[in-house]
Amino acid sequence: MADMSTDAVLKHAESVGEGCSVHGHHHGYLETKDAYLSRLRRIEGQVRGIARMVEDEKYCIDILTQISAATSALQSVALGLLDEHLSSCVLDAARQGDAQGRAKLDEASKAIARLVRS
Amino acid sequence: MADMSTDAVLKHAESVGEGCSVHGHHHGYLETKDAYLSRLRRIEGQVRGIARMVEDEKYCIDILTQISAATSALQSVALGLLDEHLSSCVLDAARQGDAQGRAKLDEASKAIARLVRS
Amino acid sequence: MADMSTDAVLKHAESVGEGCSVHGHHHGYLETKDAYLSRLRRIEGQVRGIARMVEDEKYCIDILTQISAATSALQSVALGLLDEHLSSCVLDAARQGDAQGRAKLDEASKAIARLVRS
Amino acid sequence: MADMSTDAVLKHAESVGEGCSVHGHHHGYLETKDAYLSRLRRIEGQVRGIARMVEDEKYCIDILTQISAATSALQSVALGLLDEHLSSCVLDAARQGDAQGRAKLDEASKAIARLVRS
Repeated sequence: MADMSTDAVLKHAESVGEGCSVHGHHHGYLETKDAYLSRLRRIEGQVRGIARMVEDEKYCIDILTQISAATSALQSVALGLLDEHLSSCVLDAARQGDAQGRAKLDEASKAIARLVRS
Repeated sequence: MADMSTDAVLKHAESVGEGCSVHGHHHGYLETKDAYLSRLRRIEGQVRGIARMVEDEKYCIDILTQISAATSALQSVALGLLDEHLSSCVLDAARQGDAQGRAKLDEASKAIARLVRS
Repeated sequence: MADMSTDAVLKHAESVGEGCSVHGHHHGYLETKDAYLSRLRRIEGQVRGIARMVEDEKYCIDILTQISAATSALQSVALGLLDEHLSSCVLDAARQGDAQGRAKLDEASKAIARLVRS
Repeated sequence: MADMSTDAVLKHAESVGEGCSVHGHHHGYLETKDAYLSRLRRIEGQVRGIARMVEDEKYCIDILTQISAATSALQSVALGLLDEHLSSCVLDAARQGDAQGRAKLDEASKAIARLVRS
């Protein structure tokens, strides 16, 4: 999906997302939505700060340190979202039947593999 | 440095960066500065897009896919900056003497370790 | 647990593992146990080959390539085990009750975080 | 190289390795060869222990913990070897000329990218 345009991603998200919400369950991350939004805005600021460091020709090693920090922060958001997804969507699907649970779990396992390898 | 304020980071970068540039060498990443800036602006847009997906309660798995893409893009910028840092600062320092080369290399190896582990 | 002796790990594994199997469920990875064993023996051989390369003073970059391959192979085993753990232990626990599901999921999420960060 | 047979890897290592040692420099890792060998033997034992845990049907999460530990230990060996490679082969090549330095650095940067992404 790295190659999809943002629009295509959003459209895809909508259709699949409905597959989850039509079963009457809210996304796991809703409760802490504000917390995630503020963490993501902070990461956006970190990335903007990294661009400013490049712009101002700062020392490479310090830029690398900031990139490592932003990467870790993104991974931490991903781990939080994943936990909530497993505890809501996947467990809900499993309660509905083995096939539903298996399908949601396959999808989640692929996302975990992408996180481990990225 | 994850805990340093942006100001402290910039101040630190300045002092160490001078340690590199006073030897008459420009930072390795200067030549392709514009390319890095446009990649970083694109990543900033990706992070903003991720926040919008959370805001709009999109499907978790699609958000995770976008986070993996942003993480990979950040790592790719880091690998590019590191290569240019090694080929300019570190090799220059090595030509000035073993101690200088060793010092710059220690610093670079620590940055590599942070990238591998983040 | 990186600091636990192998014995302590095995003892710990036994007690916690029973917590899963007493509920009448086999470990997810039982079906494909032989497949995992042969993959792990292959990885053990890769690590032994890496030691031999160091012993024979082979070229560093080639050794690093082999280490990356062994690391990826270990992560791939981990992702397989994790998928089977989620689909058996965690989903089973979830069917028994919210608290049981939550407890197993917390444990799994911590393991995922360790994999992403290692 | 994940697909190369061990023999092919060793043969390749030999030819490239000579490219480094003919310049009269020993591989960076020679001095601490024994230390690397004992770390690698310990990792080999960890992988064998993981196979035994699978064989004995131990608890999945404990197996995953051990895999994370072995992965980290392998990465740590790789980071050590890389540091020594940069400080010997790469800096030596750089002292011989820009083209030689650039060639060795390209090779090292690709190895770093594989480590970061594995």
